Amino acid sequence: MTDITIIGAGNMTRGIATRALAGGHAVQILARDTAAAGTLAGELPGTVTTGPIGDAITGEIVVLALPYDAALAIAEQLREVLAGKIVVDITNPVDFATFDSLVTPDDSSSAEELAKVVPASKVVKAFNTTFAGPLVAGESDGHKLDVFVAADDAEAKAAVVSFVDSSGMRAIDAGALKRAQQLEGMGFLHMTLQGALGNTWSTGVKIVAA
Amino acid sequence: MTDITIIGAGNMTRGIATRALAGGHAVQILARDTAAAGTLAGELPGTVTTGPIGDAITGEIVVLALPYDAALAIAEQLREVLAGKIVVDITNPVDFATFDSLVTPDDSSSAEELAKVVPASKVVKAFNTTFAGPLVAGESDGHKLDVFVAADDAEAKAAVVSFVDSSGMRAIDAGALKRAQQLEGMGFLHMTLQGALGNTWSTGVKIVAA
Repeated sequence: MTDITIIGAGNMTRGIATRALAGGHAVQILARDTAAAGTLAGELPGTVTTGPIGDAITGEIVVLALPYDAALAIAEQLREVLAGKIVVDITNPVDFATFDSLVTPDDSSSAEELAKVVPASKVVKAFNTTFAGPLVAGESDGHKLDVFVAADDAEAKAAVVSFVDSSGMRAIDAGALKRAQQLEGMGFLHMTLQGALGNTWSTGVKIVAA
Repeated sequence: MTDITIIGAGNMTRGIATRALAGGHAVQILARDTAAAGTLAGELPGTVTTGPIGDAITGEIVVLALPYDAALAIAEQLREVLAGKIVVDITNPVDFATFDSLVTPDDSSSAEELAKVVPASKVVKAFNTTFAGPLVAGESDGHKLDVFVAADDAEAKAAVVSFVDSSGMRAIDAGALKRAQQLEGMGFLHMTLQGALGNTWSTGVKIVAA
């Protein structure tokens, strides 16, 4: 089993941790708000260790379950301890003031910007098209959740794919890290569609096969 | 019923025409290669009129089922007759030399570039995430095909949504025409995923709801 560390104590942490525990993975949650992390850990279906950001990271895979700006800031702060680690970027860098565009530079993505901040880490894009509710539920409309995984490091990508598949979801290899540009566009679109889809935030983006 | 005119005589024309005929819509196919249009019309399950590009357009909705460059060139040629019409852009402006990026300018899309060429037309983005095979089949893995529809003109968007729904698919309102940027990224991603998905080109991008 792959141990994972999730940084942040919000809804996406709840979702990813729930799936990880279902897959038998050890989970560590580190957060600035250690009280929130402790409360969340108590509500999760399994044993989770918690601590402040800065505690020794026990996971082989580190998930930054934070908004875009915060993820970059924490990554910069933890650059040295993240060196050599698999670091998963899950963010959609939406301009929340307008909800009409992304804040990342043209021809880049949250994942690629993160990779510039932690060049010695193996950055993987994943979980940016899966909402927290379906992650907790473990499915959407009876379907396994599709998790699109993009990375330049083949070994790191394989580790995340294995983590996803072993946690009851379906990993889809989405290619190189720069495909995060399209994945983040898709994640953003999935968010903007909520108005037309009833604002349940319980939908999933699925590739259906004939 | 809404009459539609499709320009081009390739696989996407076959797919969209098949669905349109299933919905009881009259279909006209105009193509440079009128022999190909005639052959295709003979293979379609219903009555289809054909002719060369330049023939009077009978459809209320005009679908440009052509590669990106060709679609822009034909639109420029037909600018006057397309004025006031609903013009549907279905293309993914992929750089086929590298299969690694889109050829459209940053912060734009095929649909927005088309709208610049035919400013008096009502440009609608649709059908760029649906492959030809599933359109002919009418489904993917037992699911109705999701067709994402983006446009600035509300009436034109409603007409295309109605056409899609009445032809046995599910239209999803994807917002303003600029959302074509994300839709084309998603369409491109769906194409690049084919390697990982077995190269069947029979998959569909579906929003599943809890």
